[in-house]
Amino acid sequence: MTEAYYSQKTHGPFETHELGDFDLVSGEKIRGLNIAYATFGKLSPARDNAVLFPSWYSGSSKILELAYVGAGRALDPEKYFIILVNQIGAGLSSSPSNTPSPFGAARFPKVEIADDVRAQHRLVTEKFGIERLALVLGGSMGAQQTYEWAVRFPGALRRAAPIAGLARGTPYNRLLVQSFIDAITSDSAFEDGWYESASRVHRGLRRHARVFAASGFSPALFNTRGFAELGFTTTDDFVTGFVENHFLPQDPNNLVQLLAKWRDADVSRSTNGDLAAALGGVRAKTFVIAIDEDGFFPLADIEAEQKLIPGSELRRVSSPWGHLALFGADGAYNAAIDRHLRELLAA
Amino acid sequence: MTEAYYSQKTHGPFETHELGDFDLVSGEKIRGLNIAYATFGKLSPARDNAVLFPSWYSGSSKILELAYVGAGRALDPEKYFIILVNQIGAGLSSSPSNTPSPFGAARFPKVEIADDVRAQHRLVTEKFGIERLALVLGGSMGAQQTYEWAVRFPGALRRAAPIAGLARGTPYNRLLVQSFIDAITSDSAFEDGWYESASRVHRGLRRHARVFAASGFSPALFNTRGFAELGFTTTDDFVTGFVENHFLPQDPNNLVQLLAKWRDADVSRSTNGDLAAALGGVRAKTFVIAIDEDGFFPLADIEAEQKLIPGSELRRVSSPWGHLALFGADGAYNAAIDRHLRELLAA
Repeated sequence: MTEAYYSQKTHGPFETHELGDFDLVSGEKIRGLNIAYATFGKLSPARDNAVLFPSWYSGSSKILELAYVGAGRALDPEKYFIILVNQIGAGLSSSPSNTPSPFGAARFPKVEIADDVRAQHRLVTEKFGIERLALVLGGSMGAQQTYEWAVRFPGALRRAAPIAGLARGTPYNRLLVQSFIDAITSDSAFEDGWYESASRVHRGLRRHARVFAASGFSPALFNTRGFAELGFTTTDDFVTGFVENHFLPQDPNNLVQLLAKWRDADVSRSTNGDLAAALGGVRAKTFVIAIDEDGFFPLADIEAEQKLIPGSELRRVSSPWGHLALFGADGAYNAAIDRHLRELLAA
Repeated sequence: MTEAYYSQKTHGPFETHELGDFDLVSGEKIRGLNIAYATFGKLSPARDNAVLFPSWYSGSSKILELAYVGAGRALDPEKYFIILVNQIGAGLSSSPSNTPSPFGAARFPKVEIADDVRAQHRLVTEKFGIERLALVLGGSMGAQQTYEWAVRFPGALRRAAPIAGLARGTPYNRLLVQSFIDAITSDSAFEDGWYESASRVHRGLRRHARVFAASGFSPALFNTRGFAELGFTTTDDFVTGFVENHFLPQDPNNLVQLLAKWRDADVSRSTNGDLAAALGGVRAKTFVIAIDEDGFFPLADIEAEQKLIPGSELRRVSSPWGHLALFGADGAYNAAIDRHLRELLAA
């Protein structure tokens, strides 16, 4: 089931770039790291029109394409060379689910957001010869990667748009994400990550889907049946048909690996925990985009970080879909994001 | 462990009133229903100074006493005869944990908020001869009981103060509460409610405590370490020492029973689902009190109901403790509640 899911058929077309043995921040390494990505548009001769968009938790380059890329959108392939890149651990790039024994499954090494960004930097420079990206953007864990890019490689991007995410996880966010991990790993069928097949862990995945739904959408989405637009009837019908359905084909070790990466993200590792120093070094023109109804990343926490970024602007959007407006189900959200991105790209 | 917890030593002194065989709304019955309660102050000769305060989820009359009753407080035993009553299923009144076989544990019948209120009405009238209460108030599930009182017995109370709760659960709230149930019942040691001892289910109780904490407090409480006031260090230290510690001595069947009652609360059962008709019949002077930071019961949902109650007023309080400000840990919350209750009692 997971093989069919993590496939060209479901998420393609995508390409893969081999980075060889890759040393991780933790000191461990990934043998033969593969980074899966999809591109749209053409790189200009001056190599100055490239946009990098890393994936979020449990998503792939495909949903980024469907929700953000297209003619008439801010990310228009007629104008930009758009690189949608899949996180390590998410099933298309090197991951617990596709790494052979003995290093796969529960033995896949611990990856940090910084590792993704270092690998992406190599992809961008070695594969495409791009020294400076026109824009790096991303939502949620994609925002974590965007912040890490802006802090770690300040000269390598002209603009940044972290959406609905934080440069450093708050204690609240870490508690919440740990509860997502617990929902999966507490399933006795998880067996410390050594399950015989991913589908055996479906109870844990379903439980995870429900706690995720209860905090990821806004209360109003449920209370006004906003999900009826997508053809769902009751809360249960929606949570089963939309949220459980999203997670059930995925690999539990992949999800747990991603959640641990989400939980531990922190751009200030490179400045001994000094967040102001880390964000103070950002040189990209930055629009920090917050979703007012976001239960994962409350506005106050996002704004506190935005104020530490020189010359940055806070842009607020509103959606009953809350954090999960990122998925593109809300036309008003999509239009608002395009407005902000267009303005940023024109800057 | 649960015997020691559900005791006079821990929660007393409290009295018990026997109501005999009690027919439930569901059609089932409880044999020899006991209602545990504690009183403070003296009933006036005119029997017009009685205040009824039912307990909330996982709490007892003891925490109500500690957090709300005392000389100089709005609920002053010098002025009022205060009846703190324990919900059915919470361990002191008839509950899964104290009902003998074959009807106890997982076979304890399904109880609704309306059953509690009907039992409380008998306690108040039969035991104390009170025809009209000066005030009914309660927080969270106590608010559910307060609303049910005001709808079911409109002539039996002069005033009502539901705090941080709803008359009818929203789809969002039901989803959240179901996730609390799942956290407990998914523990394989729960064994469909037939665990050998409650302490065997500690993993489920701890998991439940964590999802409860992640949604019950405000993000700010964690992010600003507001719990340091109580002597806790890290998020983990606080969640373990405060939240897990609160739930671990309790009986899993009791908690699941209470959560199901919380999830299904709905004053409009008596009006064929017409909430406006149910709340439109309230005659008590009502202050609906909301906590701005409450993740369980968002302000918008509380306000929507308040508008359906004739002559009612919405009173807002703010606390980084969110929903769990109810516990009395925030002096500013306590003072604000007392101001609102004093004004209501003077009306």
